[in-house]
Amino acid sequence: MARRTHSSPSPRTRVRRLHERARYDREAIDSVLDAGLVAHLGFVSEGQPFVIPTLHARIGDEVYVHGSAASRTLRALASAIPACLTVTLLDGIVLARSVFEHSMNYRSVVVLGTAHAVEDPSEKLAALEAFTEKLLPGRWAEARPPTRKELRATSILRLSLDEASAKIRDGGPEDGDTPDAMLDVWAGHVPLVVRALDPVPDEMLDPGIPVPPGLAPYRRPGLVD
Amino acid sequence: MARRTHSSPSPRTRVRRLHERARYDREAIDSVLDAGLVAHLGFVSEGQPFVIPTLHARIGDEVYVHGSAASRTLRALASAIPACLTVTLLDGIVLARSVFEHSMNYRSVVVLGTAHAVEDPSEKLAALEAFTEKLLPGRWAEARPPTRKELRATSILRLSLDEASAKIRDGGPEDGDTPDAMLDVWAGHVPLVVRALDPVPDEMLDPGIPVPPGLAPYRRPGLVD
Repeated sequence: MARRTHSSPSPRTRVRRLHERARYDREAIDSVLDAGLVAHLGFVSEGQPFVIPTLHARIGDEVYVHGSAASRTLRALASAIPACLTVTLLDGIVLARSVFEHSMNYRSVVVLGTAHAVEDPSEKLAALEAFTEKLLPGRWAEARPPTRKELRATSILRLSLDEASAKIRDGGPEDGDTPDAMLDVWAGHVPLVVRALDPVPDEMLDPGIPVPPGLAPYRRPGLVD
Repeated sequence: MARRTHSSPSPRTRVRRLHERARYDREAIDSVLDAGLVAHLGFVSEGQPFVIPTLHARIGDEVYVHGSAASRTLRALASAIPACLTVTLLDGIVLARSVFEHSMNYRSVVVLGTAHAVEDPSEKLAALEAFTEKLLPGRWAEARPPTRKELRATSILRLSLDEASAKIRDGGPEDGDTPDAMLDVWAGHVPLVVRALDPVPDEMLDPGIPVPPGLAPYRRPGLVD
């Protein structure tokens, strides 16, 4: 399947405020999805929305999530439920001269659609491979593969990227060309970065087993040294 | 009002899997809410769940969020809607010997309840003060206060912490005492930390205005040096 480079905004995903921050191109959407290690999955059960943090991974035009929390809702209702998957990377805080203009720098993606329970074992395996490789490239070949029993015990959901949008805010405050700029108040922004510390071996680990090359040091999109 | 030290699990918030990770005490809940700079607010509009990243701040037994995205739903439906607020702090990746046991270290809080639109100007001001002081202690006294017009343009929602739970996972993989421990696979965890870089002054800033003491360096719960 050809990789789509754009995802059209629907009336539901069109960002209604702060238009200058909205992005509907797949390059922006994919880069946020791929850099984020945690997604927040929203679904509804008996009228109550739930938002659950979960690992996600994109494969082409689909995004997969661990679906344990949503799976009882899925079992109760159907094999597919309306869902929203949101990934947010926090990039900094923005300090304006006025309280009103204070903000955050971030990159976020909102995916609206239907979460389908993945039943096919080969699709489940592909999703597990994507999760594992996302955590550490090369890890799928190193770690013990799932048994059939483990595979059955794993609940995975799939959402399409058909209805997705990205929102990006960066840089400093936007009051530098307003009357507030005359105020005697420091203004600017503070970048926030995520950094990996040294790997901590399991206390039961045979000290003869070397640290995987991908951990020395651990680098991935979204992390800085 | 006395500060409650516990929040009882309801049937909806009781964590059903991995019980050892669940915490219902307010100390755990508050520390995650207070350390997190981003919340994910879930609500439902026309059957579709939405999950929107937003700044939040706790005041006692309530948590406040910027409600711009949810406000059109609120206006359409009522002054209160079922909502879920989730805050997640990612603390690391967990590399087990088996694919199945791979995990993440994290602290998360899920608050279920009803999001109420805040109409009272003094309550709005208190929430804005909490947002601002959360970004940078002392900032409320430095920055220009909101005008009445700005206050009217600010949409704020309130959720009670009556139905809240925390979930915490830390440490290494849990397969050190299983047959997998004999595998020749490195196992352990990689801590992830959030760090603030040096403040970046707004390009329009008068260089004579000093950097606030709270930014030199910027320190808050959830950040490391």
